Amino acid sequence: MAGEEEIGTILFGLLVLIIMAKVAGLLCEWATRASNGKVVIPSVVGEIVAGMVIGNTVLKEFLDLTDNGEIFYVLGQLGVIFLLFAVGLETPYSELRKVGKTAFYVAILGVIIPFFGGLALFMALNYGMNEALFVGAAMVATSVGITARVIKDMKLMGAKESRVIIGAAVIDDVMGLIVLSMVVGVAEGGSGGLIETLIVASEAVLFVLAIIFLGGYISKVRGKRKKPVVEMGEACAPTTPEGRTMSTSAMSIALILCLGLSYFAIYFGLAGIVGAFLAGMLFAEFRDKFFCQDKIEAINEFFVPFFFLSVGMEVNIADFGSVLVLAIVLTIVAIVTKFIGCGLGAIKMGGKSAKIIGSGMFPRGEVAMIVAWIGLDAGIVEGEVFSMVVFMAIATTLASPPLLSYYFKKKYGNTKEMKF
Amino acid sequence: MAGEEEIGTILFGLLVLIIMAKVAGLLCEWATRASNGKVVIPSVVGEIVAGMVIGNTVLKEFLDLTDNGEIFYVLGQLGVIFLLFAVGLETPYSELRKVGKTAFYVAILGVIIPFFGGLALFMALNYGMNEALFVGAAMVATSVGITARVIKDMKLMGAKESRVIIGAAVIDDVMGLIVLSMVVGVAEGGSGGLIETLIVASEAVLFVLAIIFLGGYISKVRGKRKKPVVEMGEACAPTTPEGRTMSTSAMSIALILCLGLSYFAIYFGLAGIVGAFLAGMLFAEFRDKFFCQDKIEAINEFFVPFFFLSVGMEVNIADFGSVLVLAIVLTIVAIVTKFIGCGLGAIKMGGKSAKIIGSGMFPRGEVAMIVAWIGLDAGIVEGEVFSMVVFMAIATTLASPPLLSYYFKKKYGNTKEMKF
Repeated sequence: MAGEEEIGTILFGLLVLIIMAKVAGLLCEWATRASNGKVVIPSVVGEIVAGMVIGNTVLKEFLDLTDNGEIFYVLGQLGVIFLLFAVGLETPYSELRKVGKTAFYVAILGVIIPFFGGLALFMALNYGMNEALFVGAAMVATSVGITARVIKDMKLMGAKESRVIIGAAVIDDVMGLIVLSMVVGVAEGGSGGLIETLIVASEAVLFVLAIIFLGGYISKVRGKRKKPVVEMGEACAPTTPEGRTMSTSAMSIALILCLGLSYFAIYFGLAGIVGAFLAGMLFAEFRDKFFCQDKIEAINEFFVPFFFLSVGMEVNIADFGSVLVLAIVLTIVAIVTKFIGCGLGAIKMGGKSAKIIGSGMFPRGEVAMIVAWIGLDAGIVEGEVFSMVVFMAIATTLASPPLLSYYFKKKYGNTKEMKF
Repeated sequence: MAGEEEIGTILFGLLVLIIMAKVAGLLCEWATRASNGKVVIPSVVGEIVAGMVIGNTVLKEFLDLTDNGEIFYVLGQLGVIFLLFAVGLETPYSELRKVGKTAFYVAILGVIIPFFGGLALFMALNYGMNEALFVGAAMVATSVGITARVIKDMKLMGAKESRVIIGAAVIDDVMGLIVLSMVVGVAEGGSGGLIETLIVASEAVLFVLAIIFLGGYISKVRGKRKKPVVEMGEACAPTTPEGRTMSTSAMSIALILCLGLSYFAIYFGLAGIVGAFLAGMLFAEFRDKFFCQDKIEAINEFFVPFFFLSVGMEVNIADFGSVLVLAIVLTIVAIVTKFIGCGLGAIKMGGKSAKIIGSGMFPRGEVAMIVAWIGLDAGIVEGEVFSMVVFMAIATTLASPPLLSYYFKKKYGNTKEMKF
């Protein structure tokens, strides 16, 4: 039985983390206001930087992160899962279908161009073929957590661009898995891996398609029985509508669905957040019967900052010293290729929208790190290259929110920021 | 960096725990309904039993509790801390002061009678003086978590009896600490420990008094400036009143206050939940400015079941085989002495109220286990006696909710149960 003292240490850690996150968030708001909105620094950037400060100073020992780090990490993972569930809740199936084609183009161009960009850069730098393939695969990833957070903070879930970004990110994750499987197959040599690759990829595709079709079916059946359940305005309403019952049981069902599909997504080799998003989308079809959005939002207020803090805490700044120049080059390539690729995919929506989508799609986040880590673990990627990818993942993640907020504001004007 | 697979295992564990808790809760509701309300089995009893099932069957390995147990334990601890914070939020200082005297009598008689009951029983059974002293100290504890849960589920936070119970539990925790310090002092021999005991106890008393006085001062100052902030009806209102602002910043401040005072309570040797309750009471004085009760409730819906599951999971049923008869005797003494002691303290409120208070005060829960564990760790209490105390702690915790609900219903009629 763990004693009260151990809990005391963890409470102290939570306390410091929450204070750091809040102060960092307030500083970002202050900076945004001081620049009269010309420079937009969303709170989430502050939270990641606060995490970097914690992970790279004496605070790390002070908070006993070696012992208790896993707990904060798990809280953060639950945070990003609930965040994407909440995003799914505000993404009705019917709306997603409308943008499906565009999202597909955004995803596929956002896979191909960055992949060959990364591959070409590392081939030109005289790295080995296998290593260059891994860097390419890491460039494919899109970490939609931070973009989802910016969108939610700006209350722009209903914007068409937001739906394209989220839809494309889901498709992107499936494609990223396929690319990764192929790269691992090639690196391990021989075509024996090909069939295995195909099986892994098909399972993931089937999993996502099955849920999307299920959502479509439910949407159709329920739509016939009554008037459309979700309207755009209502989808963003923060209060509990009258006449909706069973909101406490709704919460249990929502949690079970969310954690269940997140688990299965991981089981099929996808990111947990893909499952969480799909779960939210499915659950949204039952909004008239089971309403719990306000409760999920409240839970997110607690959990979500831990995710962005933990992203920052994972960064070891000392690793970047020797590889800084190359890491910056890789970051620029990562931003430009994804911005152009995804922007091109959405060019039919107009230049303003394409810029929003391009800037919302380029954060690589933890997904790129996982890809590089697999390569490191297999002995194919060396430590220096791993550090470069980590730098690129963090730098793209930090660079995206200000740009995304800026382009959103240019199109939608000043939206009221919702604070976590 | 922990991988997706590890998170998958944890998500799977959470999923199973939530499903088990929900199913157990529904079974309890069903049993209550099937008996036409004659037997009341609150959901929380089901959750503890579900925890016992998990902790004592193949599910334990299945959920990888050895590796991930700590995470579920921490979630549970956060749950009970937030639960007591929510209870504090609904306990205005002015109301607590009204019942202060009664709560004091309840606490002091609820300390003295069980202490000598346990001491006498184990002296009569020919155990050593020191061991009997430790059992007596374990009998003193009141674990208010389960009672708070029943009160909240029945929406009876505003009842006078509820306030007496909570107030007495806080006083009881301070007294329990004093008794424990004295017992440890005597067991370690010599009066050298006496001064140390006095210092520890005074620190705890000062901590609690300081916060209560602070609350009283704020209540007075704010009361002068405007009309009374908290009225009884309003205190139980589940919706966000209009015109209250800054509810998102309110949440951060609430979390910081709650975790901060919980940490300091542990630092001063008290239970974390005592600090959480005091934090809630303090924060309640600012309800007009910072309102976040609905959000705390939502967070509790997620966290609280983990506490009661983890209480059950800690039980090792196999330990009870050889000591069952004595353990049952100890349990009966524990229930009778606390019921009579606390009931006597509240006898002026009438028989019905005294029964409610007596039955709400007898769960010993984890506090008694911690006392017995200190004795075990110091080599004073033997393993068998430790198992008996653990049995007593669990049995009193399981026996209280049905009795408490029954007496509450007798006085207040059928209240609508709020489900977690």
